[in-house]
Amino acid sequence: MSRIESDSMGTIEVPADRYWGAQTQRSLQNFDIGRPTFVWGRPMIKALGVLKKAAAQANADLGELPPDIADLIVQAADEVIEGKLDEDFPLVVFQTGSGTQSNMNSNEVISNRAIEIAGGEMGTKKPVHPNDHVNRGQSSNDTFPTAMHIAVVTEINEKLYPDVTKLRDTLAAKADEFVDVVMVGRTHLQDATPVTLGQVISGWVAQIDFALDGIRYADSRARELAIGGTAVGTGLNAHPEFGKLAAKKISEQTGIEFVQADNLFASLSAHDALVQVSGALRVLADALMKIANDVRWYASGPRNGIGELTIPENEPGSSIMPGKVNPTQSEAMTMVATKVFGNDATVGFAGSQGNFQLNVFKPVMAWCCLESIQLIGDSCVSFNDHCAVGIEPNLARIQANLDSNLMLVTALNRHIGYDKAAKIAKNAHKKGLTLRDSALESGELTGDEFDAWVVPVDMTHPSAAE
Amino acid sequence: MSRIESDSMGTIEVPADRYWGAQTQRSLQNFDIGRPTFVWGRPMIKALGVLKKAAAQANADLGELPPDIADLIVQAADEVIEGKLDEDFPLVVFQTGSGTQSNMNSNEVISNRAIEIAGGEMGTKKPVHPNDHVNRGQSSNDTFPTAMHIAVVTEINEKLYPDVTKLRDTLAAKADEFVDVVMVGRTHLQDATPVTLGQVISGWVAQIDFALDGIRYADSRARELAIGGTAVGTGLNAHPEFGKLAAKKISEQTGIEFVQADNLFASLSAHDALVQVSGALRVLADALMKIANDVRWYASGPRNGIGELTIPENEPGSSIMPGKVNPTQSEAMTMVATKVFGNDATVGFAGSQGNFQLNVFKPVMAWCCLESIQLIGDSCVSFNDHCAVGIEPNLARIQANLDSNLMLVTALNRHIGYDKAAKIAKNAHKKGLTLRDSALESGELTGDEFDAWVVPVDMTHPSAAE
Amino acid sequence: MSRIESDSMGTIEVPADRYWGAQTQRSLQNFDIGRPTFVWGRPMIKALGVLKKAAAQANADLGELPPDIADLIVQAADEVIEGKLDEDFPLVVFQTGSGTQSNMNSNEVISNRAIEIAGGEMGTKKPVHPNDHVNRGQSSNDTFPTAMHIAVVTEINEKLYPDVTKLRDTLAAKADEFVDVVMVGRTHLQDATPVTLGQVISGWVAQIDFALDGIRYADSRARELAIGGTAVGTGLNAHPEFGKLAAKKISEQTGIEFVQADNLFASLSAHDALVQVSGALRVLADALMKIANDVRWYASGPRNGIGELTIPENEPGSSIMPGKVNPTQSEAMTMVATKVFGNDATVGFAGSQGNFQLNVFKPVMAWCCLESIQLIGDSCVSFNDHCAVGIEPNLARIQANLDSNLMLVTALNRHIGYDKAAKIAKNAHKKGLTLRDSALESGELTGDEFDAWVVPVDMTHPSAAE
Amino acid sequence: MSRIESDSMGTIEVPADRYWGAQTQRSLQNFDIGRPTFVWGRPMIKALGVLKKAAAQANADLGELPPDIADLIVQAADEVIEGKLDEDFPLVVFQTGSGTQSNMNSNEVISNRAIEIAGGEMGTKKPVHPNDHVNRGQSSNDTFPTAMHIAVVTEINEKLYPDVTKLRDTLAAKADEFVDVVMVGRTHLQDATPVTLGQVISGWVAQIDFALDGIRYADSRARELAIGGTAVGTGLNAHPEFGKLAAKKISEQTGIEFVQADNLFASLSAHDALVQVSGALRVLADALMKIANDVRWYASGPRNGIGELTIPENEPGSSIMPGKVNPTQSEAMTMVATKVFGNDATVGFAGSQGNFQLNVFKPVMAWCCLESIQLIGDSCVSFNDHCAVGIEPNLARIQANLDSNLMLVTALNRHIGYDKAAKIAKNAHKKGLTLRDSALESGELTGDEFDAWVVPVDMTHPSAAE
Repeated sequence: MSRIESDSMGTIEVPADRYWGAQTQRSLQNFDIGRPTFVWGRPMIKALGVLKKAAAQANADLGELPPDIADLIVQAADEVIEGKLDEDFPLVVFQTGSGTQSNMNSNEVISNRAIEIAGGEMGTKKPVHPNDHVNRGQSSNDTFPTAMHIAVVTEINEKLYPDVTKLRDTLAAKADEFVDVVMVGRTHLQDATPVTLGQVISGWVAQIDFALDGIRYADSRARELAIGGTAVGTGLNAHPEFGKLAAKKISEQTGIEFVQADNLFASLSAHDALVQVSGALRVLADALMKIANDVRWYASGPRNGIGELTIPENEPGSSIMPGKVNPTQSEAMTMVATKVFGNDATVGFAGSQGNFQLNVFKPVMAWCCLESIQLIGDSCVSFNDHCAVGIEPNLARIQANLDSNLMLVTALNRHIGYDKAAKIAKNAHKKGLTLRDSALESGELTGDEFDAWVVPVDMTHPSAAE
Repeated sequence: MSRIESDSMGTIEVPADRYWGAQTQRSLQNFDIGRPTFVWGRPMIKALGVLKKAAAQANADLGELPPDIADLIVQAADEVIEGKLDEDFPLVVFQTGSGTQSNMNSNEVISNRAIEIAGGEMGTKKPVHPNDHVNRGQSSNDTFPTAMHIAVVTEINEKLYPDVTKLRDTLAAKADEFVDVVMVGRTHLQDATPVTLGQVISGWVAQIDFALDGIRYADSRARELAIGGTAVGTGLNAHPEFGKLAAKKISEQTGIEFVQADNLFASLSAHDALVQVSGALRVLADALMKIANDVRWYASGPRNGIGELTIPENEPGSSIMPGKVNPTQSEAMTMVATKVFGNDATVGFAGSQGNFQLNVFKPVMAWCCLESIQLIGDSCVSFNDHCAVGIEPNLARIQANLDSNLMLVTALNRHIGYDKAAKIAKNAHKKGLTLRDSALESGELTGDEFDAWVVPVDMTHPSAAE
Repeated sequence: MSRIESDSMGTIEVPADRYWGAQTQRSLQNFDIGRPTFVWGRPMIKALGVLKKAAAQANADLGELPPDIADLIVQAADEVIEGKLDEDFPLVVFQTGSGTQSNMNSNEVISNRAIEIAGGEMGTKKPVHPNDHVNRGQSSNDTFPTAMHIAVVTEINEKLYPDVTKLRDTLAAKADEFVDVVMVGRTHLQDATPVTLGQVISGWVAQIDFALDGIRYADSRARELAIGGTAVGTGLNAHPEFGKLAAKKISEQTGIEFVQADNLFASLSAHDALVQVSGALRVLADALMKIANDVRWYASGPRNGIGELTIPENEPGSSIMPGKVNPTQSEAMTMVATKVFGNDATVGFAGSQGNFQLNVFKPVMAWCCLESIQLIGDSCVSFNDHCAVGIEPNLARIQANLDSNLMLVTALNRHIGYDKAAKIAKNAHKKGLTLRDSALESGELTGDEFDAWVVPVDMTHPSAAE
Repeated sequence: MSRIESDSMGTIEVPADRYWGAQTQRSLQNFDIGRPTFVWGRPMIKALGVLKKAAAQANADLGELPPDIADLIVQAADEVIEGKLDEDFPLVVFQTGSGTQSNMNSNEVISNRAIEIAGGEMGTKKPVHPNDHVNRGQSSNDTFPTAMHIAVVTEINEKLYPDVTKLRDTLAAKADEFVDVVMVGRTHLQDATPVTLGQVISGWVAQIDFALDGIRYADSRARELAIGGTAVGTGLNAHPEFGKLAAKKISEQTGIEFVQADNLFASLSAHDALVQVSGALRVLADALMKIANDVRWYASGPRNGIGELTIPENEPGSSIMPGKVNPTQSEAMTMVATKVFGNDATVGFAGSQGNFQLNVFKPVMAWCCLESIQLIGDSCVSFNDHCAVGIEPNLARIQANLDSNLMLVTALNRHIGYDKAAKIAKNAHKKGLTLRDSALESGELTGDEFDAWVVPVDMTHPSAAE
């Protein structure tokens, strides 16, 4: 069953049970690339709904749309926002680089659904025309990047922040909990002077906090929207107040403060704000890779590795080695990090390829940012729930390692100088002695001095060193 | 409705209508990352089926499995291969970095389906045990990379080669068709000496051929399989002939010649063959980006750009500018190129991160290679069908441009020297003269000499220059 | 001629005319990688001098160094800062990943030069010891990242900002100058509604401003220094006030406000602040690529391209085509952009690879950031001086293009609707008519209406559209 | 002291003691970017000399140049090849994207030096003209990519192969030497079934061999030269036999078989062969990163890490921790790997950016490939000489670790099944038992059976498992 829809190129059959129109149908036929992976999901569909609703409201306020038409558009857009019409958004990322057909997809679906609500006949464009009404004062060139920003900023705020913070807070609590666990420090993978487990984990928390700060900065700049620029940034065919007002309506809907960008020519022809977001996400991916690597190396063994942390056993580790348990959450998280790096490479590359008044790599930039946000969020929750919450020190192993650590010698620098201290450590290493025995053998200090000067816990706090 | 399944960690409920077992269920619960995008698709599921079938056959031949057990496994594996059990493979990419749970997923599904065929009770592991029978002589550490290679090589051969060749052949035919269309050459985006359109397109074809050669080389090396290495590369618990024989069985099934790799330690701990595949795909992405860019620039305009090629009009180009038609297939293809670059960055990074006897970034490497293959294949077909087949020269524009081109002056170098020729061209540019008028004004040559020496078509063939 | 120097590994000969000591000599012999390209240059050498001077001052203030020793160190450090001892810093980037030998290089050179000033014998470590005095309260693990940050922040402030701003201001002036030049807009490389050249260039300026904002944010965070963390972040062997005070002394020297970082464990084991800097530089590279591409495409031709801008002719463009002039500054700038992208990939990758208490990819991260800063700065000045200052509109070409532009039809949307406007444009394109003729042929509007509604300059300002 | 040189733009002063001419001087003034790092070095200068010599010989053979002129060019080119005139090549990478000025630099230097040899006056272009004679039948557009390929292929053959092979052979010898050292295997960083150290190292060798194979393939394709294409690929102004003959002359000079490429349009407008080379180098970087990481992790400790390998102590490891020795060669090598990754990102990006008949990112592509080749070569020699040759097993630690390894349980799978074996391992882990004690406690096997079945050395060879 099909019905006839039309656009400026002529008529075309579309499935009778679908709200989309002619342009969506053409894109569906012309771009069979990457299905089903790359069909747009909730964040972009919702953002388009939010945008179209806000545009109708703004146009109504400005006298650019009759109130009844605007009301119909708002009703239909609400259904798009709520996810009731997701099946009517069948297009993929790899389409027109301006996202024109996805913008038209939203125009067409909202138009037809509004027509249906009004008791009209779908495809007639009456009483609600997809271009003249739903797309009023808009162009794909400003609406699609606006929707990209809405989607990215919303996902950052509603998904990434809470998901990452969940892990961050677990680690912060662990840092407090293990503030007194003195363990071997390691630099260059080699034994070094002691630290506390609390200090180690505080470093992880500091990395996450730093990355989140950077994301918040990038987020703040991504809230500047292209709306009002229409086709080339001049705002042709839009009411002069439209962009500002639409941004205000979007803010009201989302509870996130968006504004119209100051320079709309840049907003259409470049998407540097998304490049900045992606770069900020990469900083977080860097941090998560460091953390996940530390966790699995500290938990390595159980007998032939570092073995100083234990982590939850979630699944059998091997289909051939019975009883093996692996740091699988670290593995998932570090794989996510490599994916975020790849997405970032795509975004950075695509972001450089604008020409004249338009960058036509919009959809792939939006997709990659959204994918990275989801993956980071999901993996932080997964890592938190199935790993971080269960991190525990293996106190016996930690103590045994600490006891054998030669780098405690560093505490002697201030008393006997670097060169003599070095000789004591090298002698211990060469002969397999304890550091204390080697120190006494050197004749540079007494046993009492050694015991007073070499106190691991004191070495973990600078004030104690005085 | 659920049933109880068990593994070495204990029992767990699984949905009664699903064939998967305990380990799949655990992974499903522990790794909720990137759904639904990153659930494994056909290529990997099929490859696991191919592998498990081949393993059962090899083990049976070697007396490692009773023939009736092997037959049951083969029957169930055939259903996996055919796609009948895709719904029973619910796991995502971001799981254990060895792909252990996806390997176990295939073991469990095949085991339970085989049990069902045999009239047994699912979950009892009798008469077909997921580890002892389906995974016989195998470890995730060798089976998963084997499946990765099977999937990647198969997709390259069955999808990428034909899809890309389709576009390549269309372009080759266009190169022949337009062998006599003389047009302005352009270097540095500046007017240069003439070329034929056939020559231009022949360069595109040569780039594709070059890239395909490189992919064929990478493909040939990806046919070396890890199978037989089991847990760490030593082949522990596998029959010494198992790996070679399994590779032979895989070759028979797929019609593609696979072999066991010479050094299985490298095959588990590194996936450089996939890094090489990804790098080879990137060369093709580079070529496609150049081609798609050339097409859209040659087709730019229609009135205020280069305008020397016309391409099919597939959809309205603008939601605000009536009558606009855009080079959308070029846009999709260049976006694909940026995605392939990003995937390649992920693969290269992940490929460097192995430790000791294992690289635990296997799933993300496989996913990215497979995604790039699909995207390149899909976009080549899309570009071919909706753009390349309809490329036509705009002969009037081509001639007008050629007539005004000052770089025809280069033909004079051999007659009057570079320095004098330069003066003629510069004078023409400065005064807005035709090249011929400027040449005559210079007094360096006669009109007859000019007409004899400056013949655009002659300038496109070196032999004619003599 | 050589003298004997010693360290904890024993004695070694060093050139008699060099200030460096044993550890520098060992590194020189052990790391012959990438010479001469990768020998450290001014920014890092100067930063090490700044740091060592500040450390001596801070230690003196805190009673950790005798005033006379501190004075000697300050004198020698001043010579390092001024560049008098650059020849004594022979080490390369690809050395110890902590930069230990470069830290020791500065300790040794300053120690020996201070000894020389004091009338002592070089190599005796008396009266100024490289470890016990120059490196007092320090470790390579905190000093080298501190020096990295000093170098990067200083180069950003003293080179990048002024160099980029020079170009930015030239463009801003051009944007003002050409505010009334109405020209064809282009989206998807296709003719679109008009813009002014001033608007186009304002978009470039906005991109640069946006990128500079991001760099300023990253700069602000890179001013947080690792100093005071010593070997593992605990500050062992440093006076508790040392880090804060040293940061203050560094601020006084440089006139840039540095502070000690809050969490020193993160400051040693991760360099996310540099990853953030590099990502921010990439945003600028993206912007510069867009701008340089626009310039060369607008200047393409001169006869067979867009040809709407003219740029300075700086050198002959071709060794074979006389009279050719190429957009070479754009070419240099876009090559720089690709290099900045590559450096960013290195920094991001390296930044993820820390383990436990240390990231040992410090030198390569510092190098890549500094290289990107220099290249961006240099190329902005070059592009400014040899290209941007001379950008001029080709008014005749701009007008001719504008006159033939069909997308002026967009102005009719508000009067006759999108669908009818589309038909007029398509008809004009098909029949080769002017837009006005096609409009009249359609019967949808009168000539007077056309002339009143379709006014290019009005289409460049939203208020005029009302 | 200066003299006057001229080109098609007019006259310009150049230093009297320099051989370069007007175009070099202009580029020197116009492109002050990235000095001194990015001034071309030996490989490119030599390649330009080789090319110009071959071109003169070919032109002479074809009657395109008088023999005496050709002889003069050959003499001057020989001095370029030998490095006598390096100071006369002052230009940087970031210049014209076609390398035009570097091509002209070689033309000018050779012309002036030839004039000098002939007793003429420099700058007169008599008797040897830089364009009409030295550049005879050439354009920058074909000569510069030809020189790029000559340089890259030559460096691969003369530097990379021998340098990498040196390390490869050392490791191969170590693999043989340690064939009997049985040690704990590790997967997921967790204890796994045993391997021999010889097997581990054989995996490293296999990775290097695999990467070298890929480089050899890429090398073979990079031997296809653009020469003969001149300005746009048509070969205008070159003798039809010139390209082939010049390639032959180049082969004779270098001892490496070069040929003219089949499609010269692709050779000018794309440099996919270099993208392929770069990708192949990245595979090697991946391998080297894995190897260098394994070495430092195996050598971690000395007391609180894995500690199973010892490596040479080359320099003091810490300016604060006396006696510390770090895996510095691994650190340098892994930093090189990240740099090669970055260079590869640049090359891949730049390689995609060709337009029409030219890719104008040639110099940066050549530079990055050459830099990666040098860094890989240098770091392999450094790692070999200062680390690999001294790798030794710490037999006591290896044995102690092996004795405590629970994963020996895998040997029981074939005898008692996976599930029972898993219980034994888990019980041992939980109670801190040896595997043997846990096995006996399970009642599933006798002590004699355990001793017969669980033999680590047998577990390292598949045949022994039968």
